[in-house]
Amino acid sequence: MAQKPAWLRPHGKPWVRGAARVAYDNPWIRVTEYAATAPTGHPATYGLVSYKNLAIAILPLFDDGATVLVGQNRFPLMEYSWEIPEGGGPLDVDPLESARRELAEETGLEAAEWREVLRAQLSNSVGDERAIGYLALGLSPARELHPADDTEALEVLRVPFREAFDAAMAGDLQDVLTVAMLLKAHHMAREGSLPPALARAMIG
Amino acid sequence: MAQKPAWLRPHGKPWVRGAARVAYDNPWIRVTEYAATAPTGHPATYGLVSYKNLAIAILPLFDDGATVLVGQNRFPLMEYSWEIPEGGGPLDVDPLESARRELAEETGLEAAEWREVLRAQLSNSVGDERAIGYLALGLSPARELHPADDTEALEVLRVPFREAFDAAMAGDLQDVLTVAMLLKAHHMAREGSLPPALARAMIG
Repeated sequence: MAQKPAWLRPHGKPWVRGAARVAYDNPWIRVTEYAATAPTGHPATYGLVSYKNLAIAILPLFDDGATVLVGQNRFPLMEYSWEIPEGGGPLDVDPLESARRELAEETGLEAAEWREVLRAQLSNSVGDERAIGYLALGLSPARELHPADDTEALEVLRVPFREAFDAAMAGDLQDVLTVAMLLKAHHMAREGSLPPALARAMIG
Repeated sequence: MAQKPAWLRPHGKPWVRGAARVAYDNPWIRVTEYAATAPTGHPATYGLVSYKNLAIAILPLFDDGATVLVGQNRFPLMEYSWEIPEGGGPLDVDPLESARRELAEETGLEAAEWREVLRAQLSNSVGDERAIGYLALGLSPARELHPADDTEALEVLRVPFREAFDAAMAGDLQDVLTVAMLLKAHHMAREGSLPPALARAMIG
């Protein structure tokens, strides 16, 4: 392991959280307004969106270099979106367990090998949502089937990794975890961090 | 331009938005609860976080292969975070104009060349936040100086691209736009999409 650069260390004072008022709460998020004090000492009203789940993203990779994309209409942007399998995992559950459930639920697959390759903060000026991303290798049909959510109408598609990657680079896939995970997997394939036969099948 | 794959086309029915109630509103976000109908026909209560700004991310690249990172304490996660220059741009303003302002404000730099390299949706199951990412090339001190926000205490640091990239790959930078932009720029440097001397300075 390389030593961490010294510049990574924190600087200055933290924020201080003062009086709090819950403005909204549902099973997925809570919105709280704080009377806060900024690191500069300046008072600030801060509206925080807290997430009740960890965002879990899974990039499945078949030995032949194919991956799986899931398509659905997304309510917030009222757009159809093709993404890698994703879902929410309760904060008190092992994220890998949530990832296994999500992969089986959305694609009917299970994986012999899981690799954690991404930890991310999705919008850290407004919300506290964290994400974790896995590669799922050694895929086979899941032994346990999970029923789908009754508000989800999902299309599930097996496509060559290269085709999914090119679509993301062209801006046709815009879900940020999908873009970041495809870039990370492409990088790993190029840098020799994946089994050589798989890397060749993915990026030729 | 390659032809777009046929599978990108939308499937099924869209969501339908019914009665709406604004639950929270501040200068940055609005939270609205909808009585909605899912594409499956199932009724659903949907709490939507709407963003009043576009997220703008800028990866500055000096000719010698250095970039600029900005460090600050982030309120939502109460953690110190090193990120590429980022900020919010009003939805009715040209994003490139917002990017120029943000770069000057946070780093005191201006760029001779801007390249849009990322469009992303940051958390599209709960919010409608969109992001746009630029590379800023041909850097020089900004002619116009912009005053900092009075709640922001920023550290600004010039570091080799490789060092920032390695920190992101090690999980020490977790802001998702920072991770995605560093991966995208690394990919462009490797694939010959950046000036050769710059690419060599960045990734050797």
